[in-house]
Amino acid sequence: MHSTKAKQKSAISPTRAENYPEWYQQVIKAADLAEISPVRGCMTIKPWGYAIWENMQRILDQQLKATGHKNAYFPLLIPASFLEKEAEHVDGFAKECAIVTHTRLGKNADGKLVPMGPLEEPYIIRPTSETIIGEAFSRWVQSYRDLPLLINQWANVMRWEMRTRLFLRTSEFLWQEGHTAHDSEKEARNETLKILDIYTKFIEQNIAMPVVVGEKTASERFPGAVNTYCLEAMMQDKKALQAGTSHYLGQNFSRAFNIKFLNKTGQEELAYTTSWGVTTRLIGGLIMTHSDDDGLVLPPKLAPLHVVILPIMRQEEQRASILEYCEKLAKELKQIQYHGEYLRIEIDTRELTGGEKAWSWVKKGVPIRIEIGSKEYENATVFMGQRDKPYHEKQSISHQEFIANIQNQLDSIQTILFERAQYFQKSHSVIIENKNDFYDYFKQDKDAGFAYAHWNGDPAIEAKIKQDLNVTIRCIPQVKELESGICIFSGEKSLQRVVFAKSY
Amino acid sequence: MHSTKAKQKSAISPTRAENYPEWYQQVIKAADLAEISPVRGCMTIKPWGYAIWENMQRILDQQLKATGHKNAYFPLLIPASFLEKEAEHVDGFAKECAIVTHTRLGKNADGKLVPMGPLEEPYIIRPTSETIIGEAFSRWVQSYRDLPLLINQWANVMRWEMRTRLFLRTSEFLWQEGHTAHDSEKEARNETLKILDIYTKFIEQNIAMPVVVGEKTASERFPGAVNTYCLEAMMQDKKALQAGTSHYLGQNFSRAFNIKFLNKTGQEELAYTTSWGVTTRLIGGLIMTHSDDDGLVLPPKLAPLHVVILPIMRQEEQRASILEYCEKLAKELKQIQYHGEYLRIEIDTRELTGGEKAWSWVKKGVPIRIEIGSKEYENATVFMGQRDKPYHEKQSISHQEFIANIQNQLDSIQTILFERAQYFQKSHSVIIENKNDFYDYFKQDKDAGFAYAHWNGDPAIEAKIKQDLNVTIRCIPQVKELESGICIFSGEKSLQRVVFAKSY
Repeated sequence: MHSTKAKQKSAISPTRAENYPEWYQQVIKAADLAEISPVRGCMTIKPWGYAIWENMQRILDQQLKATGHKNAYFPLLIPASFLEKEAEHVDGFAKECAIVTHTRLGKNADGKLVPMGPLEEPYIIRPTSETIIGEAFSRWVQSYRDLPLLINQWANVMRWEMRTRLFLRTSEFLWQEGHTAHDSEKEARNETLKILDIYTKFIEQNIAMPVVVGEKTASERFPGAVNTYCLEAMMQDKKALQAGTSHYLGQNFSRAFNIKFLNKTGQEELAYTTSWGVTTRLIGGLIMTHSDDDGLVLPPKLAPLHVVILPIMRQEEQRASILEYCEKLAKELKQIQYHGEYLRIEIDTRELTGGEKAWSWVKKGVPIRIEIGSKEYENATVFMGQRDKPYHEKQSISHQEFIANIQNQLDSIQTILFERAQYFQKSHSVIIENKNDFYDYFKQDKDAGFAYAHWNGDPAIEAKIKQDLNVTIRCIPQVKELESGICIFSGEKSLQRVVFAKSY
Repeated sequence: MHSTKAKQKSAISPTRAENYPEWYQQVIKAADLAEISPVRGCMTIKPWGYAIWENMQRILDQQLKATGHKNAYFPLLIPASFLEKEAEHVDGFAKECAIVTHTRLGKNADGKLVPMGPLEEPYIIRPTSETIIGEAFSRWVQSYRDLPLLINQWANVMRWEMRTRLFLRTSEFLWQEGHTAHDSEKEARNETLKILDIYTKFIEQNIAMPVVVGEKTASERFPGAVNTYCLEAMMQDKKALQAGTSHYLGQNFSRAFNIKFLNKTGQEELAYTTSWGVTTRLIGGLIMTHSDDDGLVLPPKLAPLHVVILPIMRQEEQRASILEYCEKLAKELKQIQYHGEYLRIEIDTRELTGGEKAWSWVKKGVPIRIEIGSKEYENATVFMGQRDKPYHEKQSISHQEFIANIQNQLDSIQTILFERAQYFQKSHSVIIENKNDFYDYFKQDKDAGFAYAHWNGDPAIEAKIKQDLNVTIRCIPQVKELESGICIFSGEKSLQRVVFAKSY
């Protein structure tokens, strides 16, 4: 009796409640965002997924350029010896990397293709570029006049991950990596925090994903960093997702790569460096923050299409006039700017039923769908559905009003998505005042999210919690005022609460 | 007596006439475009060079999207077995490639880092992606409704080159690679030629580099292609540079990767595919087409800066008012659009003499420099130099006139560069009617450029010419009407003249 309706009420099977990890894979499949490739641990990003990444890139790139950063491109391969120059760095990355050892394929006696032309020194495919860029900086930086040096790179990187999940953890991923050098600790520290602020605004204002911003504990630091700062978002399964990091590297990489400059008084000094990055993982964050049991939900600012126009042509004789009306609408919409870019519009003329067409765009997360049939054409109206509302909650509005309000309409969807996510995060954040409650919360509460608790700074306690509960300190949050207290694990003094959670 | 003047008359040493290949390296160095990296055969693209690439990318990307192509991203690594599926393809690329064989670095008994964790099947870093994309297409294409499939990828690729030159030939380079699948030979052939046309317009209208467009002979075809079309430009040493290629692949890769579709009559058919690409080599072409003995010359449409403003502050008390005037100018200019983008402007406030400042931007190729001293400030004028004119040929014009004419001014530089290059190409193209003249031309004429001559289509003749003269057939040019004749090497019938030249 209700099979079709029931199916329409939830296009994705299983639902979030039934099986969250599997729901995530199915949303990606239904929206045609990406797929697992035949290359171990690597994904193929399909056009709809890649268009989201391009939108992220364009917006963040503008913000990085506006703050004086310049893009450059460094080699994909890094000599193994470079990695060794920074002890923590090699420990952090040598265990899982792709190593190039040969330079041609030739046939062996059995006619099988085998690697030939061995290299004297192996190369590794960059897992991150501090070392190869450090070597370049040592040549580019001579005097204080060359500083600050503010470089960014958009690139692919590779880390040999054993357990992979589309967007969240893949052997190859895409990212931007910033690398800067400064003539003082103060300036480098300011840069590290400035980037954290740029990331926060970029993520909250565009992905509509609220983040908790803070510093990582020593055990979670980037290999080779003095301080690692991060942004942590809460997914709908209440797990934390690290959405970006910004590292103050002190003089560690300057020392390893000899990045020296003559200061204003003519003395040689080691430069102070930073590095920072966000990756295609942000697409995973976007999916898990907003999507529902009907599929992907896109924040308008990053949507590959803002509006999809669906002509419903039941009778052949109406076809031409309905299509003409759709094209007129599309033309008008494409001339409207939304946050500095022209609206992205498509008319879907595929030969499908209205329902099939509409559902395909629901699953792809397009913010606004307008259905145009003979009634709309005759009355000069549009029949509008919004992705932030239930499927059947559509409304008829006049053509004029629709055009006049489209920017506000999109902005309001953007705001609603952010506010929903923020409410969700707050609803699943708790303050915990003793160890028993803490263990109960993460052991027994299916709804366990972010726990704010006092901790004395002891890495042994942190390790024990991880072992016992698979819970980590996501960050020591940036706060306006420190609220000291007593560590709930040791009874010792604590300067502030830190954020505990399970995580991706 | 004339040392300074002489130096200023030619900022690059050696000049083109003295040593063209070395001049090329020195232009790149003086403009700070790129450098050789410590990784064998790989380059680092520095911010000024990368900004040119970004401008190329943005313009070409728009044109590809406007013609229905969508961007996606495929894995960097390709299983060795994939390459083998197309026999010509593996022969073409297996000899020079980077092979990944291990997945971690560990220490051996001597404490030396060595590759560990061997892979069962080696991967090669993509030299091009027909195979990995072919495998994906075999899953994406099921029915004629899925066609045409028009995909583009912006990516890095790697070919293990033994002799490398910045931008022209490096082991790693950046490019876009288009890959499309169609339901008929006709449509796939049309796509191949449509792209050739998009490339021609993109290159001629933006890089201001005239090209001869045509088909490659069988010996110069892409490994696995049925037809390879190309664009050939003439550098200032009269050698040809292949600026882009577009391949009709027939059903070769469909057969190898099983890209099948059900046609309208319900029968299974192999799809017809194409692939095409342009690379960072275009930057090398840009440099060698326009630059002079003073350094880089940039066509305005691709210049990272359209106008650089040089405040000349000889007296401290004028400083504030001159800077204010410069900032006002910059603000006005930044609001002006040039071919759909806002003008890119910078004020150079470095503490250098006027001459040093101006020369640094001459070497970097900025189309328009304006010097602003107390005279300009007082008279509301600008003192303008253009990169297409000799350094000392500057003119004073009123502020108003400068602002009103800036778009035309830039367009006229763009046009002049194209026309100069076109004139150069024509001046160094000849029609040759017999074999002796042909050998004399390439053996004795230092000014040998493009020779148009009749050839019967015999690959043996082509090979002999290459061996004797290091001259190749650059292309069988597209012509409006075939002009048949007699092959100058064999005396046999020839359908049309082909273009011979030395090449990069």
